[in-house]
Amino acid sequence: MFALSVVGHPSPMSFSHKMAERAVRTLREHGVEVSHHDLYAEGFEPVRGGDALVARHRAELAAADLLLVFHPNWWSMPPAMVKGWIDRTFVPEVAYRDAPIGDPPIGLLKARGLVFNTGDTPPEREREVFGDPMQRIWEVGVFGFCGMGPITRRMYAPVTSSSAAQREAWLGEVTLLVAEASR
Amino acid sequence: MFALSVVGHPSPMSFSHKMAERAVRTLREHGVEVSHHDLYAEGFEPVRGGDALVARHRAELAAADLLLVFHPNWWSMPPAMVKGWIDRTFVPEVAYRDAPIGDPPIGLLKARGLVFNTGDTPPEREREVFGDPMQRIWEVGVFGFCGMGPITRRMYAPVTSSSAAQREAWLGEVTLLVAEASR
Repeated sequence: MFALSVVGHPSPMSFSHKMAERAVRTLREHGVEVSHHDLYAEGFEPVRGGDALVARHRAELAAADLLLVFHPNWWSMPPAMVKGWIDRTFVPEVAYRDAPIGDPPIGLLKARGLVFNTGDTPPEREREVFGDPMQRIWEVGVFGFCGMGPITRRMYAPVTSSSAAQREAWLGEVTLLVAEASR
Repeated sequence: MFALSVVGHPSPMSFSHKMAERAVRTLREHGVEVSHHDLYAEGFEPVRGGDALVARHRAELAAADLLLVFHPNWWSMPPAMVKGWIDRTFVPEVAYRDAPIGDPPIGLLKARGLVFNTGDTPPEREREVFGDPMQRIWEVGVFGFCGMGPITRRMYAPVTSSSAAQREAWLGEVTLLVAEASR
């Protein structure tokens, strides 16, 4: 089993990073081969350039049995860095194949998807006021479009005002969900 | 009246550009002062750097009576370039002010917002399968968050297979909507 793991948060001290570290450790404990990428740290180019690294992401995405993404909620969307990772990695003949005009594209990915988000908007406000667009975007717009099945997604918020005990409970849930997906 | 106009599409021949050109011309014909930005052409930096240009965008956003945005639908979201323009321009003390913990932020923008999108997904599929997340994102998640009122938004699709007559009709609607907003 091969997992591609991607974290997109500008601060290496972020809770997104903490979740990613915990997830990668859990995957390896379960014998899963993992390629982990910190997009900001590795200098991923979200718009243009950096072609060798982009090619590596595409090859790993095509090969992945598990796909894990960790990022904050910025404006009901991923940060531009993560959006650029989608724009440049999920390309035709890697993630999907265009069909004749009028037919929907054919998904090419087989990975099981797990998305872990953080935010400072309380979950009720995110759902009721903003409509939680990221659930639909990841599940249907991106993963579903590429043939991937139901996703596992959690949105932990508000993070800034959370207690250490709350964060530890969230990390416990990440560990559990990733362990389940590793089997 | 002052308008900030932003187009984010990598091809200068795109229909997004055609709409932006038409809109800018219409605004000027109505005596509106316009600052127009082609994000790719001017080398806007969506993640880091380019601080002088970012500062100019922030000042113009704060001053704008009209805000016009033109971009394609990529993965039910704007391209990373446009997402980065949001991330870097809509910052605290420009677009909103943080409130005490538990209270929603206070919007600081007064502009009327117009968003013109293009895509190749038929509108029914975008609404019914993908749930049209961009409507909610722009209206509530970004503009509403910053205190802006109801938006005018159009999604023209599918563009690639459209006829010249269809595109001319779309440009006619853009002209009409922009003229109405200029009064």
